[in-house]
Amino acid sequence: VRPLGDGRFEAAVAPGWDIGGNANGGYLLAIGARALVAATGRPDPVTLTAHYLSPGKVGPVTVDAEVVKAGKRFTTATGTVRAADGRPVITMLGAFSSFDEPVDAPELVDAGPPELPDPDECTWLPSTTADPASSFRRMVDLRLHPDDAGFATGDPSGNPLVRGWFRLRDGEPLDPIGLILATDAFPPTVFNARLPTAWTPTLELTCHLRGRPVPGWLRCAFSTRFVTGGFLEEDGVVWDASGRLVAQSRQLALVPRS
Amino acid sequence: VRPLGDGRFEAAVAPGWDIGGNANGGYLLAIGARALVAATGRPDPVTLTAHYLSPGKVGPVTVDAEVVKAGKRFTTATGTVRAADGRPVITMLGAFSSFDEPVDAPELVDAGPPELPDPDECTWLPSTTADPASSFRRMVDLRLHPDDAGFATGDPSGNPLVRGWFRLRDGEPLDPIGLILATDAFPPTVFNARLPTAWTPTLELTCHLRGRPVPGWLRCAFSTRFVTGGFLEEDGVVWDASGRLVAQSRQLALVPRS
Repeated sequence: VRPLGDGRFEAAVAPGWDIGGNANGGYLLAIGARALVAATGRPDPVTLTAHYLSPGKVGPVTVDAEVVKAGKRFTTATGTVRAADGRPVITMLGAFSSFDEPVDAPELVDAGPPELPDPDECTWLPSTTADPASSFRRMVDLRLHPDDAGFATGDPSGNPLVRGWFRLRDGEPLDPIGLILATDAFPPTVFNARLPTAWTPTLELTCHLRGRPVPGWLRCAFSTRFVTGGFLEEDGVVWDASGRLVAQSRQLALVPRS
Repeated sequence: VRPLGDGRFEAAVAPGWDIGGNANGGYLLAIGARALVAATGRPDPVTLTAHYLSPGKVGPVTVDAEVVKAGKRFTTATGTVRAADGRPVITMLGAFSSFDEPVDAPELVDAGPPELPDPDECTWLPSTTADPASSFRRMVDLRLHPDDAGFATGDPSGNPLVRGWFRLRDGEPLDPIGLILATDAFPPTVFNARLPTAWTPTLELTCHLRGRPVPGWLRCAFSTRFVTGGFLEEDGVVWDASGRLVAQSRQLALVPRS
């Protein structure tokens, strides 16, 4: 992400970060988030909301960022990622801060990370493109809990739940923006529901980050409770290798008419 | 909310919609949402995110709204509510549509509304201002589950859960924007946790609406699973009198250092 001045940035959607030709939503959001980090001068997204407006394609994009308020602890900013032709791809609103400051606040954690078999006993993310050499699967290392991977072989579990391990394929440590990528990298929960729908386009995604992850695998779980009114939510929790909750996500997706 | 042209609106925070002098966050967001409804020409918020930037006070406010994309089914817009001196109070990003269109999509609902004693057997919202005549309590009719009301008498349940009934005090039917009000009207869940903190300012609130409510009481439940990293989430579900899920909410709040 390179600054062009006046709150504008240029970046590129790299080949490989697509599923069936459309760039992964979490990857697009990570590009937008890096521009907002630069615009706010604060390293860590604390809460970031994205609306997905049109598919992103491989190639150059621009990001227009605007600071709404620069406060003592948080800077709030909006931004829009646009394709080369000016078409808006995603628009964002987020608050940025620094996780460097030590936190001295009460803690109360009502759940632990999902229990998963060792990564080597989990199931590789099924390739969803005809050409696996150019697929998303080459960029992220994503291993599904075998109980949640049945949809790929036509045997969905019946439970809209997807659990698994996540890391970058090149072994690069994940920063908080990498956590955002993790929240939108897994197959949709409804793949495991026995519903007459499959494709569920994301309308909106909000990520809440609680800190920087330690190096290592992330443990993730995504679940859906309410498919109703033509929409569904997908709630995610992301835990780092030390067993700490580092991110929560919720997205609202469309349930196509059957 | 009156249009002034060029995407600007004027409105007023009415006396009574405050708690201890600060306007209720859901009420401020309802004002902002009405401006975005007018700006987008679409009646119903589907997903609306607000960042709370500074306290709102009784008196005039302006809202600046901007449409990011007007699509076939959704219009996406941003907006900022400002105090008379120009200070930003809340900034918003939302998608608007119409719930008039019949929905023909699969349904899968994994939970029902919270079980509550009859409203007359529930506990009135404790007044949180010295002057009950000017308090928020006169504007909304909010009855807490007796099991979740102990915090008001120094006996928190130990469980960060708040359930209750909600309606407007004047009996006015709630539209979808009224649902937004409901998602930020209840006492904080952490009032019921035995934690060395009480005040938890909201950083961000996202509401997902699933339809228009039928007239009558709403049943609401708010819960918190993760107080960690200096933040907590509060998840809400809102059910209408017909037993249908009409809204979900999640907010990220600050946990003050102990």
